[in-house]
Amino acid sequence: MTDADPLADPAYRAALVDLLGVLAYGEIAAFERLAADAAMAPTTNDKAALARLAVNEYHHYEELRDRLASLEVDPVAAMEPFRAALDAFHDQTAPSTWLEGLVKAYVGDGIAADFYREIANLLDEENASLVCRVVEDLGQNEFVVNTVRRAISEEPRLAGRLALWGRRLMGEALTQAQRVVGERESFDALFLGGEGREGLGLGGVARLFTVITEQHTERMKALGLAP
Amino acid sequence: MTDADPLADPAYRAALVDLLGVLAYGEIAAFERLAADAAMAPTTNDKAALARLAVNEYHHYEELRDRLASLEVDPVAAMEPFRAALDAFHDQTAPSTWLEGLVKAYVGDGIAADFYREIANLLDEENASLVCRVVEDLGQNEFVVNTVRRAISEEPRLAGRLALWGRRLMGEALTQAQRVVGERESFDALFLGGEGREGLGLGGVARLFTVITEQHTERMKALGLAP
Repeated sequence: MTDADPLADPAYRAALVDLLGVLAYGEIAAFERLAADAAMAPTTNDKAALARLAVNEYHHYEELRDRLASLEVDPVAAMEPFRAALDAFHDQTAPSTWLEGLVKAYVGDGIAADFYREIANLLDEENASLVCRVVEDLGQNEFVVNTVRRAISEEPRLAGRLALWGRRLMGEALTQAQRVVGERESFDALFLGGEGREGLGLGGVARLFTVITEQHTERMKALGLAP
Repeated sequence: MTDADPLADPAYRAALVDLLGVLAYGEIAAFERLAADAAMAPTTNDKAALARLAVNEYHHYEELRDRLASLEVDPVAAMEPFRAALDAFHDQTAPSTWLEGLVKAYVGDGIAADFYREIANLLDEENASLVCRVVEDLGQNEFVVNTVRRAISEEPRLAGRLALWGRRLMGEALTQAQRVVGERESFDALFLGGEGREGLGLGGVARLFTVITEQHTERMKALGLAP
């Protein structure tokens, strides 16, 4: 980035608003999903732990909403273009068990976080740090990994089905991500770069897919699942 | 209360732990219910507003959990005796529409808050103020009342069904409250009083029912519903 106010560039501003909008709706959707998982929790302790994760997502939503408002953008309008794709992702991947919910929380949020962290490299410092903050692991991963590993060690036959589930999550996430990126022209400006701004470039796109694939494999292994 | 440490009385201490336990589980259950209502919300704004209410309940749960821990009580063990009754209440009164969910949030939580506020009169100052704080209206009522009134003014035939719903909530709440109070002997000590502690007395019990009934009527009227 140059020293000039990056928001003075309308193409950059439009892409930033879209990025904050999709992130904000993603946080609300994640809140809902984790709260629904809390309802499936086998113990009160697990219930409270999942509820805590849901609450973290809501607080991230608030930060994003406030940033959008500070850009004089209606947060609901900014989220609207992404509602259908995110709702579709969650409808297509509604967990039918408590463990499927946990794997989704870890694998699905992991894929999203990798994606947004790479995109953050294209943003001005202030907004890059906001994006990295809201996708940061707040300890949820440790809870999920421990719980899933324990369940599998108690009942090894769970591993096959959960491994399939993890692969399906990856497929659906990529499908919806492509839909979002493809539908919003604003993102082209971000990815291709502009005056005083570097884009992703071919190398960057390749890197994005490599990072997401490698990290997904690592996460599946951490859960004790075949990637 | 006398100046002596009220917690030195085992009967008082047991009742307090039970009261904090039922309140804590009630907050977790309310979190889950409001989050599920958020999933039914017709707009993103409504969704975010309900999610915010759910998050408030979760923070109340945390306060109660921490107070139980500071009494060197396992919060999960303290909540356990009340899980069945509270889950039964919510299972019996699962809202089938967004508006039923809102009426439940207002009417159901209102009944609970009236009940707990009266009981708080029997507690030491520190715990009384905690109880009053966690049942306080944090602005949710205004949101609910406005939304329900608007919906009824747009579609007046909704009023009859929602009025029946409100009466059913009152009935189920009283049923489960009696079950909780009846099953836990610890509450007898609180209601009947003890050394240096006033109980509710007959007048207090009468007052409790009068307050709950009157306030319920007021809340139904505020929603534009026949009590």
